[in-house]
Amino acid sequence: MIRLFIPHDLAAGAELALDHGQSHYLASVMRLAAGDQLLLFNGRDGEWRASVSALGKRAVAVRAEAQTRAQAPGPDLDLIVALVKRARLETIVEKAAELGAARVRLALTERTNADHTRLERLTAIATEAAEQTGRLDVPAIAAPVKLEKLIDGWEPGRRLLFCDEAGDAAPILEALTAAPAGPWAILIGPEGGFSAKERERLRGLDYATPASLGPRILRADTAAIAALSLWQAALGDWRQS
Amino acid sequence: MIRLFIPHDLAAGAELALDHGQSHYLASVMRLAAGDQLLLFNGRDGEWRASVSALGKRAVAVRAEAQTRAQAPGPDLDLIVALVKRARLETIVEKAAELGAARVRLALTERTNADHTRLERLTAIATEAAEQTGRLDVPAIAAPVKLEKLIDGWEPGRRLLFCDEAGDAAPILEALTAAPAGPWAILIGPEGGFSAKERERLRGLDYATPASLGPRILRADTAAIAALSLWQAALGDWRQS
Repeated sequence: MIRLFIPHDLAAGAELALDHGQSHYLASVMRLAAGDQLLLFNGRDGEWRASVSALGKRAVAVRAEAQTRAQAPGPDLDLIVALVKRARLETIVEKAAELGAARVRLALTERTNADHTRLERLTAIATEAAEQTGRLDVPAIAAPVKLEKLIDGWEPGRRLLFCDEAGDAAPILEALTAAPAGPWAILIGPEGGFSAKERERLRGLDYATPASLGPRILRADTAAIAALSLWQAALGDWRQS
Repeated sequence: MIRLFIPHDLAAGAELALDHGQSHYLASVMRLAAGDQLLLFNGRDGEWRASVSALGKRAVAVRAEAQTRAQAPGPDLDLIVALVKRARLETIVEKAAELGAARVRLALTERTNADHTRLERLTAIATEAAEQTGRLDVPAIAAPVKLEKLIDGWEPGRRLLFCDEAGDAAPILEALTAAPAGPWAILIGPEGGFSAKERERLRGLDYATPASLGPRILRADTAAIAALSLWQAALGDWRQS
């Protein structure tokens, strides 16, 4: 069934006018008819079954009928990723949504070239992936910040999984199974890796867990997906069946 | 440094004439000069340092100088993947090479639509990924075979990790840590999932381990990368640091 992320509050009987984009999608792309059902979520009120109540090519209204799932917080996991090339960054954002990251934060490192990106485009990708993967919220995308600033303003109590290509870090599964649950962030560097200075600073942080992702060189998107999956399996919501 | 997969035998002093594609890549794309160094591997003789010995726009020769790494077998891991749409299948092949699969076998399932694909294109993608990731071989790509035929001809002693979306399978990390090392295959179904009949047959196989990849719906490429990463971390060559 179609799932849509909407900004409106959700309650039984609420009539909701969808924006032009979503109206076009339902009316012209998916060709829904009045009375057809879909699912809605807004990140606050759980998931609701709804039906199409009014149908125009550019203005569709839907009526919320009954809650199908209560809102429940997902794992408190940030993905911090260096600004890599656009196609790979878009893949990473899509996969972070599928793999249950709460937030994606963009970082500028010494070996990062690009210094800006289209946040609206990344948010649209995260939203579509959230709709398809069945989660009840959309990961927030945070604008690029220098890595040193991220570290300077680090939130107390949040641990950091730091994927270290240099080779002397513990294997990732060993590192994660020895680590506590709770709020975490995963840091993925640029294709050129971290500078020696950055590595030194990261390895000196008492909240950081360096980890190795095996003997082969991984592209940034592969490393991000692997680390998110390992974290979910060892410390996140892949532990329940 | 540039790494190239070549068909030739490698030995100290061997002069090797590269094909047109690789000659063009070295001469015109990477603009190497006579004497410049690169790395070569063929899947049999380890990795060798070589230098450009003759340089034309369409005919480059290189001389193997010294072995830099001895050939060593990687994990004996097959990825069996349903024929999904071309872009996702190409991503899966690239990532299987990065994540150390020995072979990628294509499967036709009840809910698979496409029934043929360009194996040469997939092999080229696997080769380029193998060159970049630093491995000493290229994963073989096997032509599509019906899932039931794959099962009928199953190699004795090879275990099968079966990513089961239906929800009552054990969490993947629990399933893998309880399982033996040795030859394995990972099976990734089509976007529509396996049919009830296929699931029943898979779950009845004594060499199969069903596993859950968490509460969200994953696209086929995400599931493949997650499962390969978890397997490498729990049973493969990500266990050593």
